[in-house]
Amino acid sequence: MPALIEPKILKGFRDFLPQTEIVRRNLTEKIETSFRSFGFVPVDTPALEYAEILLGKGGGETEKQIYLFTDNGGRDVALRFDLTVPFARVVALHQAELNFPFKRYHIGKVWRGENTQRGRYREFTQCDFDIIGSDSPAADFEILLMIRSTLLSLGTDVSIRVNHRGLFNRFLSHIGLLEHSVEVLRTVDKLAKVGADETRASLAEFAGDSGAQKILDFIGASGSFEQTLDRITELSGGPSPESERLGLLRRFMGDVTGSGDASGDSFVLDPSITRGLDYYTGVVFETFLKDIPDIGSICSGGRYDNLAGLYSKNRISGVGSSIGLDRMIAALESLDKLPAINSAAAAIACVRQEDSGLYQALAGQFRQAGVPCEVFLEPADSSDNKHMVKQFVLAEKKGLRWLIIPGDNPLQDTFILRDLAARHNREGLSVAEAVKIMTETK
Amino acid sequence: MPALIEPKILKGFRDFLPQTEIVRRNLTEKIETSFRSFGFVPVDTPALEYAEILLGKGGGETEKQIYLFTDNGGRDVALRFDLTVPFARVVALHQAELNFPFKRYHIGKVWRGENTQRGRYREFTQCDFDIIGSDSPAADFEILLMIRSTLLSLGTDVSIRVNHRGLFNRFLSHIGLLEHSVEVLRTVDKLAKVGADETRASLAEFAGDSGAQKILDFIGASGSFEQTLDRITELSGGPSPESERLGLLRRFMGDVTGSGDASGDSFVLDPSITRGLDYYTGVVFETFLKDIPDIGSICSGGRYDNLAGLYSKNRISGVGSSIGLDRMIAALESLDKLPAINSAAAAIACVRQEDSGLYQALAGQFRQAGVPCEVFLEPADSSDNKHMVKQFVLAEKKGLRWLIIPGDNPLQDTFILRDLAARHNREGLSVAEAVKIMTETK
Repeated sequence: MPALIEPKILKGFRDFLPQTEIVRRNLTEKIETSFRSFGFVPVDTPALEYAEILLGKGGGETEKQIYLFTDNGGRDVALRFDLTVPFARVVALHQAELNFPFKRYHIGKVWRGENTQRGRYREFTQCDFDIIGSDSPAADFEILLMIRSTLLSLGTDVSIRVNHRGLFNRFLSHIGLLEHSVEVLRTVDKLAKVGADETRASLAEFAGDSGAQKILDFIGASGSFEQTLDRITELSGGPSPESERLGLLRRFMGDVTGSGDASGDSFVLDPSITRGLDYYTGVVFETFLKDIPDIGSICSGGRYDNLAGLYSKNRISGVGSSIGLDRMIAALESLDKLPAINSAAAAIACVRQEDSGLYQALAGQFRQAGVPCEVFLEPADSSDNKHMVKQFVLAEKKGLRWLIIPGDNPLQDTFILRDLAARHNREGLSVAEAVKIMTETK
Repeated sequence: MPALIEPKILKGFRDFLPQTEIVRRNLTEKIETSFRSFGFVPVDTPALEYAEILLGKGGGETEKQIYLFTDNGGRDVALRFDLTVPFARVVALHQAELNFPFKRYHIGKVWRGENTQRGRYREFTQCDFDIIGSDSPAADFEILLMIRSTLLSLGTDVSIRVNHRGLFNRFLSHIGLLEHSVEVLRTVDKLAKVGADETRASLAEFAGDSGAQKILDFIGASGSFEQTLDRITELSGGPSPESERLGLLRRFMGDVTGSGDASGDSFVLDPSITRGLDYYTGVVFETFLKDIPDIGSICSGGRYDNLAGLYSKNRISGVGSSIGLDRMIAALESLDKLPAINSAAAAIACVRQEDSGLYQALAGQFRQAGVPCEVFLEPADSSDNKHMVKQFVLAEKKGLRWLIIPGDNPLQDTFILRDLAARHNREGLSVAEAVKIMTETK
């Protein structure tokens, strides 16, 4: 016999066994249902692209992390490291085939040679959604509203912290610090991580003590959405298109709940939110779960004004965001709000192997009634209880709630329905009676 | 301005734009729903594995097609080229965590450097399902039944052509040709492609004219399932465990329909089905769509007796199959049976941008009622009909059926509902009335 190959897996990569994978699928299904209820449509792109497409002008950090190689045809290729760059390439390539404004989502795996010691994975799933080809504040608002609706549909209440990059820059211009915009935005983005003192010191290096104080005043503005908006409007030199846009978003928020407040505090104006990336030019936001804010933002994004600039002369603006699926799952798990994991609700026990066809016919009646029903394949060697107990144990291990023990004539006779959670049996049931019990029991 | 990068895509790879991707998702959703109704559970595995795992003892054809490279850590890695090898690795690695019999499905992308001139893709989706850890004929039957149920749920009637490798070998042994088993199986597997004459000539090379004739008699046996079974039982030297197993499968088939026939000819015993792969040891099968058989088998598979032999000393037997998703989509397309493509059924027209919040609130009422409803973001510059016509066109391009033209007070007023297919308007509707019309109109 030849030597065995050790069945190992690459570091940073994961097998998803059923208990985990079912949860992931249930979750992405709910997310997709929400996206599609807003009229968003899915796209998919190749895992592998020309390296020059993915690297863009870049290099640097990206190039170190990317899975880059030469294929059998001598082409330099790479595994996609995010879904944004392929989206930009798709839009540049297929502009004529798309209807604008284009509302798309994309849920797919991406690959990065991350340092796994920081608890990062080298293969993970991203869940992106964008509206492109519209400058309308209604598009900004739709993205914010869809985040709220989607996360509410997962059973979690959220606080979406919104700001406007353009207004921030207007403020910097007003105080004569616009040239330091990138440094300021990056420094402020780390505020929550490093604290106010270190942020002040970092800012003072290029903005001076007085400039640093002004910036801290601006990003520290708080209160209701209106109060905060009034304050940062004033600090940025009075009303502007950017402050008016935030005002309009605020109005939309109130319209949706029909009440005066910003949708029960789902939406908060927070001038300290800047998002570090140069990419964004308008509204930016981060999303926190009210029950577990410390886990960090689980859905961030913003408005950008030139999605596909590397590949096309046409400027295509948009607004988009991404749900961090792994973080979301961890959060739901700690809140005990993960969707239920049982795949099949019920199973038919195998009393006699030769009746397997009849068991499938019986199971078919449950499936028809919308109850997933598996059929156990291995017969009890005898009809005594010991062998049934084995099947009880298997059913419990599989996370099933119900086990049906069929009679001698599986399709004619009534059967026993075992409630595996309550560990008790009901005898003499028909399919209709059992379905009623199953669907009414919590 | 820097030079643009050409937004090209690698040959053999595909972008799936919404119209195509929605179809693919709807299809896999239906397939998954069917699998899960049988109690099958999903797994997922990494796209990237150690090369030695994927290549196994192999080399040869596989090695030429595989995407193989060295990662930044100096490891030889490869993109998975099927879902079977990773499944074997998973089972060897996680044996203790799995409940046997283990019924799993796996829908995922795989990569092969195929010659694209033959119309092959280098990235495509496989859809595998297996029951492992059971030798029971009930497991063979469940796989066959699930194929039938799943494809029926897609609106296509099937003919599943079944044979038994073991019975074929018993026959070869009976006529003294067992040593040529592999050659015979491979030659017979090409029968449909090359025709009877060439097959006879190929067989005669090692089996002689008389042996070739006997093999052609065996694989040519036809008639009802019973008649064929009687004939091949006789040709293989009389009743055997293998012929009895086929008899039991036949019984199960009849039990499921409750009628005497083999489930309305869904199941056909066809001794010419051998599947070329050495891998299979028991039942083998191919599945044809009755309306379009020429497209070839869209779901093939069989029983094997040592799934994870490369990685584990434990022999794990099973039975499994795979749906060819691309071929299935092509078939459904040519039969005009693809699931509908519209993502959102309805949209709210944008009359005035400042009412966008109220439009979202109105759309929310439709979403609550289970009708996907998008909100148009770009306002009509004036309220005349010309601008509405633009929105009609956009809605039609998006494949929507309904457009709602809200009143001046979007939440209080009734609205106009435009049927984009019939091109006519109904005025003065409430949400409840509109939902009724939408759900009752075909």
